[in-house]
Amino acid sequence: MTRWRLTVEYDGAPFVGWQRQAFGTSVQGVLEAAIGQMTSEKITVHAAGRTDAGVHALAMEAHCDIGKSLTEHRLREGINALVRPHPVSVLEVARVADDWHARFSCTGRRYLYRILNHRAPPALLRGKVWHIGAPLDLDAMQEGANKLLGTHDFTTFRSVHCQSASPVKTLDELSVERVGEVVHIRAAARSFLHHQVRSMVGCLGMVGRGQWAPEDIAAALAARDRAALGLNAPPEGLYFVSASYP
Amino acid sequence: MTRWRLTVEYDGAPFVGWQRQAFGTSVQGVLEAAIGQMTSEKITVHAAGRTDAGVHALAMEAHCDIGKSLTEHRLREGINALVRPHPVSVLEVARVADDWHARFSCTGRRYLYRILNHRAPPALLRGKVWHIGAPLDLDAMQEGANKLLGTHDFTTFRSVHCQSASPVKTLDELSVERVGEVVHIRAAARSFLHHQVRSMVGCLGMVGRGQWAPEDIAAALAARDRAALGLNAPPEGLYFVSASYP
Repeated sequence: MTRWRLTVEYDGAPFVGWQRQAFGTSVQGVLEAAIGQMTSEKITVHAAGRTDAGVHALAMEAHCDIGKSLTEHRLREGINALVRPHPVSVLEVARVADDWHARFSCTGRRYLYRILNHRAPPALLRGKVWHIGAPLDLDAMQEGANKLLGTHDFTTFRSVHCQSASPVKTLDELSVERVGEVVHIRAAARSFLHHQVRSMVGCLGMVGRGQWAPEDIAAALAARDRAALGLNAPPEGLYFVSASYP
Repeated sequence: MTRWRLTVEYDGAPFVGWQRQAFGTSVQGVLEAAIGQMTSEKITVHAAGRTDAGVHALAMEAHCDIGKSLTEHRLREGINALVRPHPVSVLEVARVADDWHARFSCTGRRYLYRILNHRAPPALLRGKVWHIGAPLDLDAMQEGANKLLGTHDFTTFRSVHCQSASPVKTLDELSVERVGEVVHIRAAARSFLHHQVRSMVGCLGMVGRGQWAPEDIAAALAARDRAALGLNAPPEGLYFVSASYP
C-alpha cells in the first residue's frame, strides 16, 4: 500500500463541490472513479479543503491509499486520461508517508477571490469571477479587511452548516489589490470556517461600494451573529490556491 | 442615423466565428439580433477582424448604424441584457463619424496567443489555451519569430480561404514571453492574412519543441508555399487584443 499525494486543479462550475454527495458530480467522486478504474480498488480521496459547488482550485492538495504498484508518471497520466471530460487535472503526484494527511497535516491554506470590477458583464471570465459593476474603493476595502486580521471568534462569517469545533480562527492575511480590471482578495490562515472567505469578501464588497464603512466590518465581527453578515459573495469568484505542510 | 463604435469582448468557444454563417451561431449574428430587437431596425455590424470559430476577443472593435435615438448607457446595457446567455459583452460604445469604419479605418491590430506549457492538461484554462506538455525552448522560439518580422510575402502562413488581395504584409511585433506556466506570443501588424497568426504560432511551437530549428522558419517563409507550413496552431489559444485607429 502506498499513500499518494495528489495536487489537483479544477474548474468548480459543473460540480456539486469537492465532496461526494448523494446526487450530482463531485470532484472527489470523479477522482475516486478514475483511480478505482485504474486499480480495481475501492479508493477514498481526502482533500485539504472541501470546496463548495462552483468554487475552483488552482492546486488543491489531496491524498489516497493505493495497493497496486504504479509509477508517478502512470498514475498522473492515467487519472488525467480517465477524468475526461470533467475539468479536473492532476498537476503532480508524489509518494508520502503513511501518516501524511492532506487535511489533518495541513498547516496553512490560501484562497484567492476575484472580482471583475467594470461596468460590462464578464464574457471570457464568466463563471470565474464575481461581477461588481459599480466602482470599488479599494483603500476602504483594505481598511475593512485589516479589522479581521488576527485571532477572533468568526461566528458572523460562518455558515450555519459549518462543522468546525470552534468559531475561533486566526486570519494571517487578507489583502485587496487591483490587477487591471480585476480585484484580487487574498486570504491566508491555518484553516477557515465554512463560507468564511466568501462571507468576508461579501462584506468587503459592501465596503467597496460605500454601503458599509470599514468600521461596520469590525461591528459585524464583534456581533458574533450570522444575522450581522452583510452578504455572502458568490462561489464562482473563489479559488483554493494552495495548502502548506510542515 | 448615428454610427456607433462598439468594443466587444467574447469567448469564441460556442461560436462559428465572428461572421454570420448559413448555419450556427456567430458573434456578429448575436449582436445584430440584440440591436435589431432594441431598435426594430435591420442592423449590420462590421468588425476590425473576422475571427475564426473558437478564437476569442478581449476588445474587438466594431461599428453599426442605428436610426433610433439612444443614449450610450441605454445602448450598451440593452445589448448586454439581450445577448444573454451568449458569452459576449459590450465593454464600451461611442458615437463616431459617419465615415469611420471598424475594418477599413483600422491601422493596427494586436493578437495574443496563449500556450499552457506544463505536463498536465488544462482544467481552469480549458478552451482558452493550446496545451503543449513538452518543455518549450523560448529563446529558440524568439529567434525563429524574429525571422518573420518586417515586410514579407507570407503565402506559407496563409489559409487557402484567405481573401486578401496580396500575401505581402508587414509584421511589426512577434514576441515570446513566459508568464508562469503560460507562454504568451504577441503579434502586431497593420493587418494579417487569414490564419497568419495561428500558422506562425504553429511553427514556433515546432521550434520550441526542437522539431524545427529557428532557421526552418526563415526557409518556410522563403518557400512562399502553404505546403511548407509546419503546423496551424488551434484556435482556442488565440485572442484578438485590440485595434487602433488614426
